[in-house]
Amino acid sequence: MGFETTKEGYPLHNQNQQSPSPSIASVGTRTPVTIVGLGPMGRALAGAFLRAGHPTTVWNRSPGKADDLAAQGAYRADRIADAVAASPLVIVCVLNDDAVHAILEPVAAALKGRTLVNLTADSPARARGTAAWAAEHGIDYVDGAIMTPTPTIGTPAASVLYSGSSDAFEAVRPALASIGGAVSHLGDDPGRAAAFDVALLDLFWTSMSGYVHALALARTENIPARELAVHAQGIVRILPAIMTSIADQVDAGRYPGDSSNLLSAAAGMTHILHAARHHGLDTSVLTAAKAIAQRAIDAGHGTEGFSRLVEEIRQPSV
Amino acid sequence: MGFETTKEGYPLHNQNQQSPSPSIASVGTRTPVTIVGLGPMGRALAGAFLRAGHPTTVWNRSPGKADDLAAQGAYRADRIADAVAASPLVIVCVLNDDAVHAILEPVAAALKGRTLVNLTADSPARARGTAAWAAEHGIDYVDGAIMTPTPTIGTPAASVLYSGSSDAFEAVRPALASIGGAVSHLGDDPGRAAAFDVALLDLFWTSMSGYVHALALARTENIPARELAVHAQGIVRILPAIMTSIADQVDAGRYPGDSSNLLSAAAGMTHILHAARHHGLDTSVLTAAKAIAQRAIDAGHGTEGFSRLVEEIRQPSV
Ligand SMILES: NC(=O)c1ccc[n+]([C@@H]2O[C@H](COP(=O)([O-])OP(=O)(O)OC[C@H]3O[C@@H](n4cnc5c(N)ncnc54)[C@H](OP(=O)(O)O)[C@@H]3O)[C@@H](O)[C@H]2O)c1
Ligand SMILES: NC(=O)c1ccc[n+]([C@@H]2O[C@H](COP(=O)([O-])OP(=O)(O)OC[C@H]3O[C@@H](n4cnc5c(N)ncnc54)[C@H](OP(=O)(O)O)[C@@H]3O)[C@@H](O)[C@H]2O)c1
Repeated sequence: MGFETTKEGYPLHNQNQQSPSPSIASVGTRTPVTIVGLGPMGRALAGAFLRAGHPTTVWNRSPGKADDLAAQGAYRADRIADAVAASPLVIVCVLNDDAVHAILEPVAAALKGRTLVNLTADSPARARGTAAWAAEHGIDYVDGAIMTPTPTIGTPAASVLYSGSSDAFEAVRPALASIGGAVSHLGDDPGRAAAFDVALLDLFWTSMSGYVHALALARTENIPARELAVHAQGIVRILPAIMTSIADQVDAGRYPGDSSNLLSAAAGMTHILHAARHHGLDTSVLTAAKAIAQRAIDAGHGTEGFSRLVEEIRQPSV
Repeated sequence: MGFETTKEGYPLHNQNQQSPSPSIASVGTRTPVTIVGLGPMGRALAGAFLRAGHPTTVWNRSPGKADDLAAQGAYRADRIADAVAASPLVIVCVLNDDAVHAILEPVAAALKGRTLVNLTADSPARARGTAAWAAEHGIDYVDGAIMTPTPTIGTPAASVLYSGSSDAFEAVRPALASIGGAVSHLGDDPGRAAAFDVALLDLFWTSMSGYVHALALARTENIPARELAVHAQGIVRILPAIMTSIADQVDAGRYPGDSSNLLSAAAGMTHILHAARHHGLDTSVLTAAKAIAQRAIDAGHGTEGFSRLVEEIRQPSV
């Protein structure tokens, strides 16, 4: 079978678990789980399931990623078919859905009757495509999006959004609780979690890009990163209230500029660009952001609020 | 003199206050303050000084912005010369330092011996230039950067960074306390507050751009803005810890990718771009951000962390 048991007293897999149509509820107190993909997040997930007492099988495309997990009691599957056969609940967490298909298409038949929870981030269209593929093969499918970094996994600080079949989700909900933190099921559309995910990661990666740029700009003035970080956390503290107010404006379709307007925002961006160009930094990101604001100003919206840009982003210039 | 007193019982200006070399300490319990510029922030500042009991004079380039403030007891100066003559402490808060110079150069002589606090956001180079101009004219100069939005002004949630002459700053510190919240003096270099300001606004405006883009992307999937905002606040909650860890890496010049690396980040950005392009959104900002990550990957840094991009931003492609 290609398993190794490296921790004494660990419950052994029984025949039922390895049958093609295992019942999640029937196998002891903790559902056996297989984790496919041992990047930083896959390893964090496997660690959390192990600590919560699940019989945990792990597999990764390239070898050498499972050593620590095996030392903690994980079963190391040499072949993906063995990994899938080991558990009624298979969690895949790899680079993208292309990788998911590359790994799992050859073992579609073995997945039949099991639940596949795809915690790989990809677009809503890809999530729906993977769900359709799973349905074709009789695989119960839940799509998920992990919203917090690896150190949160297995702690109350974790947050995962799920969507897809409610029945499939409810069956594995108790097992997924071992990931920790907040669990939200956003409905039966398997693309819903990914829809939130891409939007939230849009905010995340754009903000992260702004942060590393801010650190590069601070450095031109000999401001240490740690010193800027303290004040950057102050900026982060003002965001939630601003976000709520912008969301209200967007839902209402009204973009008042009475507390700050696009002309003032564009002037602010100009100072930043001025300082950054003066020091020869790459300014491509903020230049693009400013161009969107400028387009709205040129269209006569300069005295409206920043929230107006939601409309501008929907109508890209040609 | 062009003043109007619209609130009974307000202390009248005495001759001393309007002399060319007034003493800040000599004039009653609350320093008279002049606010030049009545955009959203100037009005918020004037309101805070009025509520704290300062004799407050206001001036704006175009008329009609002072009505509410006058109703609260502000002296409305018709001419900038009268506004400057009214108080030993003159605070200017306008669009940018070009506007500061357009307004104040004609009254440089009248500012002599007074303290000018420039709360206008501009680049460090412009702040240093304005400080040099002030020094030439015998004006005590403090530069400041307001880090919080208008509703915070006059409350403990406000935050303002100052830099420039410590002597000038300490003399007006008690009066500036009426702005509320955290007061930091970052040293004698008049450009220091602006240096922090441009870096922090870089983070702020880039994040805000990411947020409105996220709302536009969410809308393509019929996710209401308020619903996304709730989860966006979850993203904001994970930022401080990530920022601290990135700052440590940047100060150490080491960019480990063991909890998440640039290849994974670029894949994440690809999903977002895929979804956004599918719906015809403007993707210029994230496309630029991804290109920087891709450059680092192409240079062999794909398994390093996102913090590596600080180096990449310093060496823009040609
Ligand atoms: N790390 C985080 O903080 C975090 C947070 C939230 C969400 N996520 C999401 O979690 C998922 C996994 O992220 P990660 O951080 O663990 O690292 P990752 O770099 O996104 O993924 C690494 C995993 O993908 C596998 N892989 C890549 N290309 C493959 C291919 N063509 N065929 C088969 N396997 C392939 C790798 O196998 P090899 O080892 O063989 O290369 C490894 O198992 C991603 O979708 C990510 O967006 C991560
Ligand atoms: N609003 C905020 O939330 C916020 C937060 C932090 C920092 N700040 C900073 O505070 C400063 C003021 O911002 P704001 O929100 O009050 O609005 P703003 O739109 O940046 O500035 C408006 C003020 O600038 C004046 N002005 C513009 N161009 C001028 C010119 N060429 N000559 C003379 N006056 C000119 C306007 O006069 P008219 O009325 O005659 O046009 C008005 O008094 C900016 O530097 C901004 O970055 C604002």
